[in-house]
Amino acid sequence: MKINLEKVISYINELYQCGARGDGTHSRVAYSKEDIKGRETFMGYFMALGLQPRVDEAGNIIIRMEGKDSSLPAIVMGSHLDTVPDGGRYDGVLGCVGGLCVCETLLENGYQLSHPIEVIVFTDEEGFRFGNGLLGSSAICGVNPMISEDDIDMYGETRSEVMKAYGINVSAVHKAKWKKDSVHCFLELHIEQGASLYKKGTSIGIVSSIAGVSRYEVVIHGEANHSGSTVMSDRKDALVAAADFISQVPRIVAEYGNEFTVATVGTIKVSPNSVNVVPGMCTFNLEIRDQEDEIISLIESKLIEYLKSVCEGAVNSYDFRKISYHEPAPMSSWVKGEIESVVKDLEFDYEIVPSGAFHDSLVMTERFKTGMIFVPSVKGISHSRDEFTHEKDIEKGCQVLLNTVLEIDKKIIN
Amino acid sequence: MKINLEKVISYINELYQCGARGDGTHSRVAYSKEDIKGRETFMGYFMALGLQPRVDEAGNIIIRMEGKDSSLPAIVMGSHLDTVPDGGRYDGVLGCVGGLCVCETLLENGYQLSHPIEVIVFTDEEGFRFGNGLLGSSAICGVNPMISEDDIDMYGETRSEVMKAYGINVSAVHKAKWKKDSVHCFLELHIEQGASLYKKGTSIGIVSSIAGVSRYEVVIHGEANHSGSTVMSDRKDALVAAADFISQVPRIVAEYGNEFTVATVGTIKVSPNSVNVVPGMCTFNLEIRDQEDEIISLIESKLIEYLKSVCEGAVNSYDFRKISYHEPAPMSSWVKGEIESVVKDLEFDYEIVPSGAFHDSLVMTERFKTGMIFVPSVKGISHSRDEFTHEKDIEKGCQVLLNTVLEIDKKIIN
Repeated sequence: MKINLEKVISYINELYQCGARGDGTHSRVAYSKEDIKGRETFMGYFMALGLQPRVDEAGNIIIRMEGKDSSLPAIVMGSHLDTVPDGGRYDGVLGCVGGLCVCETLLENGYQLSHPIEVIVFTDEEGFRFGNGLLGSSAICGVNPMISEDDIDMYGETRSEVMKAYGINVSAVHKAKWKKDSVHCFLELHIEQGASLYKKGTSIGIVSSIAGVSRYEVVIHGEANHSGSTVMSDRKDALVAAADFISQVPRIVAEYGNEFTVATVGTIKVSPNSVNVVPGMCTFNLEIRDQEDEIISLIESKLIEYLKSVCEGAVNSYDFRKISYHEPAPMSSWVKGEIESVVKDLEFDYEIVPSGAFHDSLVMTERFKTGMIFVPSVKGISHSRDEFTHEKDIEKGCQVLLNTVLEIDKKIIN
Repeated sequence: MKINLEKVISYINELYQCGARGDGTHSRVAYSKEDIKGRETFMGYFMALGLQPRVDEAGNIIIRMEGKDSSLPAIVMGSHLDTVPDGGRYDGVLGCVGGLCVCETLLENGYQLSHPIEVIVFTDEEGFRFGNGLLGSSAICGVNPMISEDDIDMYGETRSEVMKAYGINVSAVHKAKWKKDSVHCFLELHIEQGASLYKKGTSIGIVSSIAGVSRYEVVIHGEANHSGSTVMSDRKDALVAAADFISQVPRIVAEYGNEFTVATVGTIKVSPNSVNVVPGMCTFNLEIRDQEDEIISLIESKLIEYLKSVCEGAVNSYDFRKISYHEPAPMSSWVKGEIESVVKDLEFDYEIVPSGAFHDSLVMTERFKTGMIFVPSVKGISHSRDEFTHEKDIEKGCQVLLNTVLEIDKKIIN
């Protein structure tokens, strides 16, 4: 059975267009109108196949295709449709379209599995608006998504308002949890978003584990004052202190981490943000990632130590608050083995690779047998309009996903 | 003749309330609905006195009160009503209300000057929205305000749209220019916004000169990429480069400037501004101020040199663009002398002080005989909700303004 590459590409392009914006960029940030348009478009594809999507209490879209035995646990595939602002064409989308492509190919070939299939689109993987993602997969797994009705997003709206407009009741999100024995395994096809497959010219990556991710909000409190009449020695400039800290993050990672350890300040804002006012407050998000817990803790403590030394005497105070944490997550060795045997049968070149990026699989692996299939990102570029994956690799990735589903369907476990 | 402090305070408080916002802060940023409300309220005070305001092609509000001889040049007083976001109660407002108070006191006392009086509210002194202020005073003086219809503000709106909604046609702004011989002198009452009068416990400052101000927009172009899968050595992080630069600004000022030289980065934004994306672009505003041209040029060149060294190899490119420049501006020695003799007659304590902050007087002094009267800012705090000036100092400042007008009216020059 061969997957239909042409359709896959056309779905990906059509979903990308749902995020087209007036300024020429493309974004489908979670909860935006572009996100809603993308979700409706995606659900439409299944309805055209005669499959009715449902939306759960966490906003996840779930499409079920019955197998010969409805009592068997489901083979679940999926990923997310939300993007970062000015994001790429493949991140998340490929795993959703991959699931769709598997269903469509099976239907076209009149092939019914023993197990039911479920395709899932997870809500708010990227966590752009509230700085805290993996919402849908956390809800499915019964993991506390660390959300509150009073969370304030970057536009000053509360989570409760934003979610309500999207059709989610914050207090009911926990009801989306799945029973552990309802899932045979979870498979996520995804672009690598790093450059290791690309550099080696390899088409398929089988993920060994996902790096842990720890995220923080840092607020530095200085004193807003007139930029012309406040001499340098009288200033408590929150941005100068923040800049000193941010400029030293790479040095601290190099000193205490390993070659895969990363730490990033991806957002920043100052208040009042005026050309003629010394910044009184500076707020930014920091994250640290590594395959090992201990390294994350070490980097965290060294960064706090440096922040303290920067702020002492220079500003009034600072807050360093952890906003989320996900442990490093090894994939299921059974699922990895199944993917590897399928790839070998197909005679595709492959690598076993770690994932620096996190994914819904990071949470799913805590509760369900989970495996991830990677395809290369050209030059490792992702979360950018320049994100690109060659069609030949997309074709191989979807084929591996289909064949893994067919192979796993033959194994009745428990 | 004594000014009415109670009325002055009530005007200031009422104007402050025009900027009240839902989040508990107060702002009257130029062109905002709060600014418009403040302007209408202010014009209402004059209409209640039987004086009809007009609005010129640059959006300046002008109120003329005829003297005994309409052919004489006008004694002009004024300042601005726009504020920075979350700004203070006195900055700009005091000079406008001071002019109103002089007119009201003269009317109440049935005293008519020989010269006409004009009170002016200048448009967009702060330059918050487009990073480029002194619009109204530049137009009055025929100085190029360096504006373009295509300027984009921080909300993505063009200057042409924003000004049109405010009633200004960008291409007609130059028509607001005044003839040089139409003005006897210009007087601006203002809070000091620095701490020198406050530290000495002095009530009145007579400004010697205003520091020159040079403003720049700096854009650093790196590469947006996924924060989890892009190892540190593969990154071109625009924010890390910007942070290195910003953290060194105070050191460079200390090394090459004098005790009054200041340089400030007051705004910053990164793109795409997401917790899990390495910043691909960082944009910020820089300004340098000093009483001497040469110092400003030296600091500028040292900062460019450092920026270049930071960016080389670390990011793709950078732009360092001057967006405005105002030379250091000495006040008119004739006007300074008149103010000083008035203050001595009143037996108020005073200091001759430079102004680090810039003011519409910076531009006005290029074309008209200009003088500034300062009153102390408690702890030197300004551009902040904590901006405060004692009522006794406001009273003295307004009285000096009135008496200076009376004194100057007696001098027929030319």
